[in-house]
Amino acid sequence: MGEKIDIPDLPHGPLDVYRNRASFSWKEMIRFLEGEEVAFKQHIFQTLENDPLFARHPGEDFSLEQKRELTFRRCKQLFKYDFLTRDEMIQSPLKLAVLSDCLGMYDWSLATKYTLNKGMFGAAVANSGSERHLKFIQDTDNMMTFGCFALTELSHGSNTRAIRTTAKYDPSTQEFVINSPDFEAAKFWVGNLGKTATHAVVFASLYMPDGHCHGLHSFVVQVRDPKTLLSMPGVLVGDMGKKLGQNGLDNGFAVFHNVRIPRENLLNKTGDVTPSGCYVTSYKDPNKRFGASLGALSGGRVSISRMSVVNMKLALTVAVRFSATRRQFGPTEDEEIPVLEYQLQQWRLIPYLAAVYALEVFTKSFLMNFFEFRVGLLMKSSSARQAELGREIHAMSCSCKPLGSWTAQRAIQECREACGGHGYLAMNRLGDLRDDSDPNCTYEGDNSVLLQQTSNYLLGLHQYQQQGKGRIESPLETVNFLDNWSRILESRFTAASVEECMDSAVPLAAYKWLVCFLLGESQQKLAKQKALGLGDFEARNNSQVYYCHSLAIVYIEHTVLQRFHDLTCDEQTPAGLRPVLRKLCALYGLWSLFNHMAILYQGGYFTGKEPADFIQSAVLTLCSQLKDDAVALIDVVAPPDFILNSPIAKADGELYKNLWTTVMQGKNVLDRPSWWAEFCYEKPQVGSLRAKL
Amino acid sequence: MGEKIDIPDLPHGPLDVYRNRASFSWKEMIRFLEGEEVAFKQHIFQTLENDPLFARHPGEDFSLEQKRELTFRRCKQLFKYDFLTRDEMIQSPLKLAVLSDCLGMYDWSLATKYTLNKGMFGAAVANSGSERHLKFIQDTDNMMTFGCFALTELSHGSNTRAIRTTAKYDPSTQEFVINSPDFEAAKFWVGNLGKTATHAVVFASLYMPDGHCHGLHSFVVQVRDPKTLLSMPGVLVGDMGKKLGQNGLDNGFAVFHNVRIPRENLLNKTGDVTPSGCYVTSYKDPNKRFGASLGALSGGRVSISRMSVVNMKLALTVAVRFSATRRQFGPTEDEEIPVLEYQLQQWRLIPYLAAVYALEVFTKSFLMNFFEFRVGLLMKSSSARQAELGREIHAMSCSCKPLGSWTAQRAIQECREACGGHGYLAMNRLGDLRDDSDPNCTYEGDNSVLLQQTSNYLLGLHQYQQQGKGRIESPLETVNFLDNWSRILESRFTAASVEECMDSAVPLAAYKWLVCFLLGESQQKLAKQKALGLGDFEARNNSQVYYCHSLAIVYIEHTVLQRFHDLTCDEQTPAGLRPVLRKLCALYGLWSLFNHMAILYQGGYFTGKEPADFIQSAVLTLCSQLKDDAVALIDVVAPPDFILNSPIAKADGELYKNLWTTVMQGKNVLDRPSWWAEFCYEKPQVGSLRAKL
Repeated sequence: MGEKIDIPDLPHGPLDVYRNRASFSWKEMIRFLEGEEVAFKQHIFQTLENDPLFARHPGEDFSLEQKRELTFRRCKQLFKYDFLTRDEMIQSPLKLAVLSDCLGMYDWSLATKYTLNKGMFGAAVANSGSERHLKFIQDTDNMMTFGCFALTELSHGSNTRAIRTTAKYDPSTQEFVINSPDFEAAKFWVGNLGKTATHAVVFASLYMPDGHCHGLHSFVVQVRDPKTLLSMPGVLVGDMGKKLGQNGLDNGFAVFHNVRIPRENLLNKTGDVTPSGCYVTSYKDPNKRFGASLGALSGGRVSISRMSVVNMKLALTVAVRFSATRRQFGPTEDEEIPVLEYQLQQWRLIPYLAAVYALEVFTKSFLMNFFEFRVGLLMKSSSARQAELGREIHAMSCSCKPLGSWTAQRAIQECREACGGHGYLAMNRLGDLRDDSDPNCTYEGDNSVLLQQTSNYLLGLHQYQQQGKGRIESPLETVNFLDNWSRILESRFTAASVEECMDSAVPLAAYKWLVCFLLGESQQKLAKQKALGLGDFEARNNSQVYYCHSLAIVYIEHTVLQRFHDLTCDEQTPAGLRPVLRKLCALYGLWSLFNHMAILYQGGYFTGKEPADFIQSAVLTLCSQLKDDAVALIDVVAPPDFILNSPIAKADGELYKNLWTTVMQGKNVLDRPSWWAEFCYEKPQVGSLRAKL
Repeated sequence: MGEKIDIPDLPHGPLDVYRNRASFSWKEMIRFLEGEEVAFKQHIFQTLENDPLFARHPGEDFSLEQKRELTFRRCKQLFKYDFLTRDEMIQSPLKLAVLSDCLGMYDWSLATKYTLNKGMFGAAVANSGSERHLKFIQDTDNMMTFGCFALTELSHGSNTRAIRTTAKYDPSTQEFVINSPDFEAAKFWVGNLGKTATHAVVFASLYMPDGHCHGLHSFVVQVRDPKTLLSMPGVLVGDMGKKLGQNGLDNGFAVFHNVRIPRENLLNKTGDVTPSGCYVTSYKDPNKRFGASLGALSGGRVSISRMSVVNMKLALTVAVRFSATRRQFGPTEDEEIPVLEYQLQQWRLIPYLAAVYALEVFTKSFLMNFFEFRVGLLMKSSSARQAELGREIHAMSCSCKPLGSWTAQRAIQECREACGGHGYLAMNRLGDLRDDSDPNCTYEGDNSVLLQQTSNYLLGLHQYQQQGKGRIESPLETVNFLDNWSRILESRFTAASVEECMDSAVPLAAYKWLVCFLLGESQQKLAKQKALGLGDFEARNNSQVYYCHSLAIVYIEHTVLQRFHDLTCDEQTPAGLRPVLRKLCALYGLWSLFNHMAILYQGGYFTGKEPADFIQSAVLTLCSQLKDDAVALIDVVAPPDFILNSPIAKADGELYKNLWTTVMQGKNVLDRPSWWAEFCYEKPQVGSLRAKL
């Protein structure tokens, strides 16, 4: 598998000390984890590095306008490179993920701008439309037009059912009239709509001439003239302004004042309107129709989970290489040791490194599950398995997006702090990573809101089983263990030593108990709330904290851990890699479990002092064992220096030389300020403006 | 106490619903918490609002250069306003804190720029120098010169003893020769040094003509010509470039190439050099001398703790007002409820609101302790109490800075997420708050490194007592309870109901046990490490995670909780405010305790399911009880709209009107991009640059 692909050596330098201590071959690990995609990845990275349009600018301080222009120009260049044709994407869906990873490692604004047009707009049209809409996709593929996806409104995000934009059918002209009742219903937060988009997939409530409402549908609405980029009549479209991050991407808003679009622009997969004004649909239940029209979105959360892993890889690369070369204090006054040698620094960083590997393995395998599901969709499979797979993937994506994005956000903050002041210097990129990663917690569903979808799924299964309706079995087997719910609930922590705990089987068993325990507790909590006379809405709301919310998190942590555990036990995993992977897996499991230790005691899985003592010792021992592998583990996941773009984390490990050089390459570094005369000549008269109180 | 000061009413609007439900008078709370300082605060806020130089710019996107210019001009204006003369600062030290709070609420770059010059440079010269250095202070007070404080070097931050800049005395000219051996010893991260500073307090190792080194001393070094702002001969001085935040402040670096300064520029409080080249000092131990020369810094951490509270106030104001006006979902399809009504949203925000009050009370009282200590310093008190007070304040400041800055960082991130997408819009200010607050975790001592100072203090006391040397008593009584160490260790959780837990006495007792337990465990852990033959350095390093590190945190959490608890029990606290303060105090205590629940079980303080169940229920009940007070509690701590500068959080609660208006006021909002022809005319030939692989 990819044995022949050449992976270039890394430059020698101060990091050699750790590299030489590694217990495994980093190149073997790359080949194992990435297989044939290594060459494609290298090709993309090299292409970007060799194109001056993609050059990095030390000490860059671009304005919003400049950032957006540069991102647009680079995006246009990606059309010329056309790294993946539509056919290739279908043949090798994993390549699409690799492309997104690589572009994101370079700059998320660019990756998102490109993906929202080709992927999101294209996918929405393809999945919700029909033959007659193909030209919209072809036009964006050629950049004749530029697409965006407009669902969220100023006053409605999570509650998409409350979207207030309307589309009224006018049979006299065979047009829909798109209207925003007021500015609170302005489409808002739409990526690409700020400056670039000419066409938008707009979600609006469909009204028939007789006033009957058929609920939310999507329409292709032209918002700008592709020949001038000026707005279309009746469309007030603009730029939302500066965001915390991803400022190369132009997020925008649109208000529609009775904008007329052809009848054919209704994306008609789930329902259509005849020229005379009859509504036709193959779905009887409008709720199901709504669900199906949102189905096109389900891939977003899978991608975001992947984005989170990518951001963690970058942040950890910065922090681990820095920690291996930054020396501070030492056993004697003359000798300073790398900060990676400190227990505290290991404990801050190495568990997150373990999380990188755990989530890397998980997101890749989950991506494959999702592709399987999508093939089923395309094949219009109506099998029971396909339906169950859809439910399970929904539950998984609604929890792995929160898990991934929160873990990444915490990891980046920890990396920032672990690099001290140098982590606070913009050129070292941790700020951009934090800012670009942050919205992953919000878009495609607020994390906390999404987790309810997962707990609802689990509670539903549990109820089904408790009512004796049958076994719990799911296509991806993430919930099969719940079939042993009562037996697992009786299980207890049995490890008798720290050594025994250093096996991922220990946290895995604890997680099984945790899911079962929280499932039972959540169900009881809900039942109690209902017994108090509360309705379904209130009962669920009052059962989130400490119950349903936690349940969803432990479920996905268990799933991630299980898949990683299985990989480390797999005979096909190279023997030379298994020991380090087993350590990473155990560390990830124990460290994650630590957050739930109170529950383990609360529910009686742990008793006495030993379990916590063992787990703490095991975590510290694993951190200490892995610190000599940390640099090599980072070399596996780190992109080339050009892509990483962080002077304190170059592969040669020359921390200070690289940092100092980059500082000196900045603009106006040594110049006196333009406003020097303000200081030198016009001295303030101290107190001259002081009020007489 | 300040009864007569008029506090203007807030505008009516959607927030009235919650304001009318408040259980207390928000104006009474302001008068109670702020006393006479209310008028001074209002005066500063109004002055800034009435000066066009301080105007806010909707959708601002200033370049680094512009930010630095604007901040400098505003700083200069502050000299004219001269809100506090040096005399006034001494008379009412609390006013200085109010000034810093107010400027920081407006913009931290400005506050820091002003403070580093007047406070940090001035204080360093005043505290470490003598009569002959007064002119340096007078010159900066009149802005004839501009000061900065240069300790950190490129390769050394935490380990200040390893600073490598040298100062060699040359008796032939009666000068010191300041030299940086290489760029790794460049002074780095120095605030104001990037563009503005003309004079720096530089820390360097003092070498005598005979080659003898007397350790670190501080010197006033002129780095730029005040008449031109051009660098002085031999000084390579420049701007470090963009940081994650506080970009109005110009942080810089300096490399000294044998720069000659007059002998008199040595800040000679702890040691001096005679014209002929003799070193004279009243200190015999160079370590003590070093400690004394760093003594001037101890106020920094107190200020940073205060900065953290201010940032939390701003972030919580944004998130709570947003949550009280943002509606999403509801019990029926037609009715949407404010997101503040959701249990999960309450649980995310209200404990941080409680933390605001707890830390507000703590930092103010701690500030007064610090002033007492400083008066003692100025009076050259050599009493035992003064020495003990110094140790205790050091231990407190080394832990309350970490507690404050970490709590603020988490609070701001939670607020960002709790505001969903709108929290990600730069104009709503949560990004700036996060970025400006972030370095509080790092400067004036990395949080994790500082915590060791606190645990060392506690372990020292414990050892003293265990060895039977006497009672544990400290001037501020933060450690007196340790005298009952063994009795407290035997105490157990006894609350028998949720109601009983809703009193701060319950978490307070648990915290006392926690400190004692972790003290014992840490001591044992250290002893075990030493028994293994490890030296002091290794033993301490290996006892941080789960032991000394946690010990320092629970100690300061206990101290904060104790002071808040005492206030709520104080007869002088107005009766109308006590109920809500008691709830806030209990919530802060229980919520903080939650992070340590595993230890409470591990050590046997908790047994069985009940304790955790009770605490969880108590937290949720308190959140739910406090949600109707939340808006009024925010009104107490929120600055005027102009200062807050967040459209989604204006006092009138008109969330969408204010947000929409500000979006539309942005620059070029509706314009087509300058690069429109790039899109409209030069279409890319798809795949034209595609490699033939």
